[in-house]
Amino acid sequence: MLNVGILGCGRIGRVHAASLAAMEGARVAAVADAMPEAAQALAESCGARAMDAEALIADAGVDAVVIGTPTHTHYDLIHAAARAGKAILCEKPVDLSAERIRACMAAVEAAGVPFMTAFNRRFDPNFAAIGARIAADEIGAVEMVTILSRDPSPPPPAYIEGSGGIFRDMMIHDLDMARFLLGEEPVTVYAVGAALVDPEIGAMGDADTAAVTLTTASGRICQISNSRRASYGYDQRIEVHGAKAMLRADNMLRDTVEMAGPQGFTRAPAQDFFLERYAAAYAAEMRHFVDCVAQGRAISPSLADGLRAQLLADAADLSWREGRMVRLD
Amino acid sequence: MLNVGILGCGRIGRVHAASLAAMEGARVAAVADAMPEAAQALAESCGARAMDAEALIADAGVDAVVIGTPTHTHYDLIHAAARAGKAILCEKPVDLSAERIRACMAAVEAAGVPFMTAFNRRFDPNFAAIGARIAADEIGAVEMVTILSRDPSPPPPAYIEGSGGIFRDMMIHDLDMARFLLGEEPVTVYAVGAALVDPEIGAMGDADTAAVTLTTASGRICQISNSRRASYGYDQRIEVHGAKAMLRADNMLRDTVEMAGPQGFTRAPAQDFFLERYAAAYAAEMRHFVDCVAQGRAISPSLADGLRAQLLADAADLSWREGRMVRLD
Amino acid sequence: MLNVGILGCGRIGRVHAASLAAMEGARVAAVADAMPEAAQALAESCGARAMDAEALIADAGVDAVVIGTPTHTHYDLIHAAARAGKAILCEKPVDLSAERIRACMAAVEAAGVPFMTAFNRRFDPNFAAIGARIAADEIGAVEMVTILSRDPSPPPPAYIEGSGGIFRDMMIHDLDMARFLLGEEPVTVYAVGAALVDPEIGAMGDADTAAVTLTTASGRICQISNSRRASYGYDQRIEVHGAKAMLRADNMLRDTVEMAGPQGFTRAPAQDFFLERYAAAYAAEMRHFVDCVAQGRAISPSLADGLRAQLLADAADLSWREGRMVRLD
Amino acid sequence: MLNVGILGCGRIGRVHAASLAAMEGARVAAVADAMPEAAQALAESCGARAMDAEALIADAGVDAVVIGTPTHTHYDLIHAAARAGKAILCEKPVDLSAERIRACMAAVEAAGVPFMTAFNRRFDPNFAAIGARIAADEIGAVEMVTILSRDPSPPPPAYIEGSGGIFRDMMIHDLDMARFLLGEEPVTVYAVGAALVDPEIGAMGDADTAAVTLTTASGRICQISNSRRASYGYDQRIEVHGAKAMLRADNMLRDTVEMAGPQGFTRAPAQDFFLERYAAAYAAEMRHFVDCVAQGRAISPSLADGLRAQLLADAADLSWREGRMVRLD
Repeated sequence: MLNVGILGCGRIGRVHAASLAAMEGARVAAVADAMPEAAQALAESCGARAMDAEALIADAGVDAVVIGTPTHTHYDLIHAAARAGKAILCEKPVDLSAERIRACMAAVEAAGVPFMTAFNRRFDPNFAAIGARIAADEIGAVEMVTILSRDPSPPPPAYIEGSGGIFRDMMIHDLDMARFLLGEEPVTVYAVGAALVDPEIGAMGDADTAAVTLTTASGRICQISNSRRASYGYDQRIEVHGAKAMLRADNMLRDTVEMAGPQGFTRAPAQDFFLERYAAAYAAEMRHFVDCVAQGRAISPSLADGLRAQLLADAADLSWREGRMVRLD
Repeated sequence: MLNVGILGCGRIGRVHAASLAAMEGARVAAVADAMPEAAQALAESCGARAMDAEALIADAGVDAVVIGTPTHTHYDLIHAAARAGKAILCEKPVDLSAERIRACMAAVEAAGVPFMTAFNRRFDPNFAAIGARIAADEIGAVEMVTILSRDPSPPPPAYIEGSGGIFRDMMIHDLDMARFLLGEEPVTVYAVGAALVDPEIGAMGDADTAAVTLTTASGRICQISNSRRASYGYDQRIEVHGAKAMLRADNMLRDTVEMAGPQGFTRAPAQDFFLERYAAAYAAEMRHFVDCVAQGRAISPSLADGLRAQLLADAADLSWREGRMVRLD
Repeated sequence: MLNVGILGCGRIGRVHAASLAAMEGARVAAVADAMPEAAQALAESCGARAMDAEALIADAGVDAVVIGTPTHTHYDLIHAAARAGKAILCEKPVDLSAERIRACMAAVEAAGVPFMTAFNRRFDPNFAAIGARIAADEIGAVEMVTILSRDPSPPPPAYIEGSGGIFRDMMIHDLDMARFLLGEEPVTVYAVGAALVDPEIGAMGDADTAAVTLTTASGRICQISNSRRASYGYDQRIEVHGAKAMLRADNMLRDTVEMAGPQGFTRAPAQDFFLERYAAAYAAEMRHFVDCVAQGRAISPSLADGLRAQLLADAADLSWREGRMVRLD
Repeated sequence: MLNVGILGCGRIGRVHAASLAAMEGARVAAVADAMPEAAQALAESCGARAMDAEALIADAGVDAVVIGTPTHTHYDLIHAAARAGKAILCEKPVDLSAERIRACMAAVEAAGVPFMTAFNRRFDPNFAAIGARIAADEIGAVEMVTILSRDPSPPPPAYIEGSGGIFRDMMIHDLDMARFLLGEEPVTVYAVGAALVDPEIGAMGDADTAAVTLTTASGRICQISNSRRASYGYDQRIEVHGAKAMLRADNMLRDTVEMAGPQGFTRAPAQDFFLERYAAAYAAEMRHFVDCVAQGRAISPSLADGLRAQLLADAADLSWREGRMVRLD
């Protein structure tokens, strides 16, 4: 039985707590939040103890921590948890600074604790199936990856401010997915972007519409596009073109109903809310973390994966701002 | 070069003439119509001679005739063409009376001329592919056939009057398709029907919404449904469930465009007009007729196929009127 | 808090227990099974007491019972639970005899207890959406309902024996769905059937492939087909054709991945297992039961709905055996 | 009646001749080809005169010419035809040198003759519908265009040699489509490419897999990807994301048949051959040319459109070779 402590009882913390509650072999032992009422409420609903973060990390009855607090707090919590010898599952982005992620890596390696970066999309059953089928050589060598990713609607300006920009906040998921699917590290990055959805986002120096092109050393190509707006739901599509065949995952729609009328044939919009769309992914991600910790297996995505994605996001941001291709070493 | 005479220069006659014009190995030699202007117009557009029907059938320069005149005239034209030794392609239904179709069969057999009943749908590339794949044993033994067939809108009452009713006029296509796909002759027929679309059709003693169940001696089942109305275009779907797999043909839509918006994902309506929907079928049907005549091969669907479909339509009509299953011998 | 007792700790009992565990406002208070180990195991996993059925029904701490025991035991359990004043959720079929269902109705009415017949498919999000959209007049008057329902593979002969036959065991779901969608009671039933999948099923006097046609007083038509075999998963499709538009629900596939290669474009098979396919339906069904009991609202589907479906299944069985249309009063 | 002369009786010349033969208001008056037998054969099949190119252009009985000869001959033929006052439909690319295209423009403008650049894809019914629906403001302001375009298999090395490279030979179609759909001129171009399909193509200094990103002055983004190989047919998809909705055109498959079996649900491969895939586009393109010439209307795509596409292809080629974004003035 793995005893897990939840740091941060907001939306994502509650999702992880629910995954643990429905799982054999693990349980929520303790929860903490800067807002004590939030911690108390979650503690009650899952039969755990509410504590403050420091105490939770120090608690001998806690084997692993899930860090779902605001990004700027990750650094200290990772260091503390590593020192306390806890296994760590940390939400993305690990930090907005690659330098500080490197410092976290050093701390985690020094402590020798298991660490997982929560790129949940790798665990989406559809995307995971594509990954597995590429690995099983169903499509031959990967030649081109295409990722289209659009949010239903833009976040409020206040969110944008601390987000690190569209490449670090939104596209980082797609950059990790690109690495997951390409099978080789990207070596060049080129990004474009514009504020087409909300001029206020533009005024804050960020883009709400963006596209990136990656290439790998052997010449594989990945195109990613993002928009902060999609009137038809949460648009999440990936396509991998290989030497022998092509694999693609379409959107998950709200239901399977189609209406036929004078307007034509209409299916439901895509599932709108990311927690619904990726519900299965969150559960599978936690299952993977618990199993790997319990069995002492290496965890993927690792902290190094978190760093690589961050470096790609940094490069994309730079490319966009300077209007030039950026080479990664 | 097969010299073909077109009897009847209405909509369907012009389709056949166009198929012949675009084809190598055959040409329209002569055309005839009760309305001389119609004959003249078609003659000019395809470089043929306009004649009266009698002369056309007698003409030594005509090798084959295509009968696209009103149904009640088929009987005499078939007899005359058979006597004149012409190959015959006759529109469905050959006649509204099975007895008279039998008389036509006798005449055609006595004369030894090639005869094709124009069940064009067997030549639709989609439905023909299903037939070919069943024949290639892709799905194992056929167990169940499902046919959904809906017209965009009901015909005017004047048309209903001389049509022979929904089973002989509309469902006869599906009954022939059922025979084509089942691979065994139906031995029981059960039909239901109602006038749900247009009360006037009901007042004339006909139905505009109908369904039939067929069974074969070995127990294979076919369900057919018809409606004289479909707000989303001409709905033409078939599905064949076999021991190993299932094959189905979906509708042909107006284009491949899909719009995604708050209402969901909307594709175009189905192609609306039967001449557009079955354009490829009409061309392939004529190609088959010309090739079979030229090469002296047996033609399918034959006049016997026309008779069997008519007997099924008669049985369905009887079943509906008497509210009981009808057994075919 | 509604305290629920689970009678029958097999597959379906465990599904209902899990739904209750994940739900606010209700909990599993007690469980019972003819095999004490099964009861014990479920009791432990959901923190409930294991008891024998009699004691559970008598227990003052139990407000409602879920009957998931073998069909032949339903009759006595319903009577006992009704006498004890418990709300009842009973799996389908309530009983294989319409006469005995009528006796249950009398007992339930006399006791005045809430009763729900567990036709879970009405709660499938896709089918429920179709029902709601018909009710919202999106497609105008219903004219034709088409239901295709195929199991992945036939049950073992031992199961067939006590099942009541394909119409009462399998098609009863579709007959209930037909009533749900038609909006009028069927007045005629015609059924065909054959043993095409497994000759042993035929030898036992049952069919494994069957089709039914229903009509209502106003002329609405429903066609249902069933097969005990589908190589591509659990095939569950419904389509409702109305005066203004058509609604249909397609299968739920295992994932959204499509592979394109020389063979064409291949999507995943349909979800195979009924507990997976109808997982959301089971949860919504239990939610509905708990809410209706808690709020004193009328429950649908009722015991009368269970009886009507059984009468349709009886009529279909009779129609098939006698080769004739059967009229319902 | 527009009398048209066909220059070049190869594959594309024959397609244009067939379009004219099936059309009212125009006819093939004369044909010419460097190989007299080719000209003779086409002349016979469409009842035209075979001549040499010079004579054809000089012929008073020819109102318009269709230039379907090898690219390097276009320049002289355009100049000659312009001098002779003929309307001109010229296959793409007009020339591999933007400078020489500018010279053609000067000659055409001086002569005042109608000129159409044969970007046939704009006339594909699916893509044309998307263009029309954008123009009708169905999706609001265009924000992002995604074009995926893959050939079934790479051309032979001999073809590559004179082709101008993948950007000028293959992607030029997509670059024109981008202009057609973006509604604004691209101002930046970034291209990547590699020889992943055939190393020989790489050895010749060309790529067989390529991707381009375009941006317009207002920030609209277009991503295009090309591959010279697709195992599932001729892959031709476009998607336009707008402020209000998204429009996309899927591939045209060989038929509408779907097989369901243990492998899942399989539809047919995409139509394989470009002349089949774009058959309707070629016919509509010719119809547009003939109508515009007959009615004295401005023709689109114009020679300026041909030049703009060529400049984009040149910029893409440069971007790829130099690994940097290229700005267009």
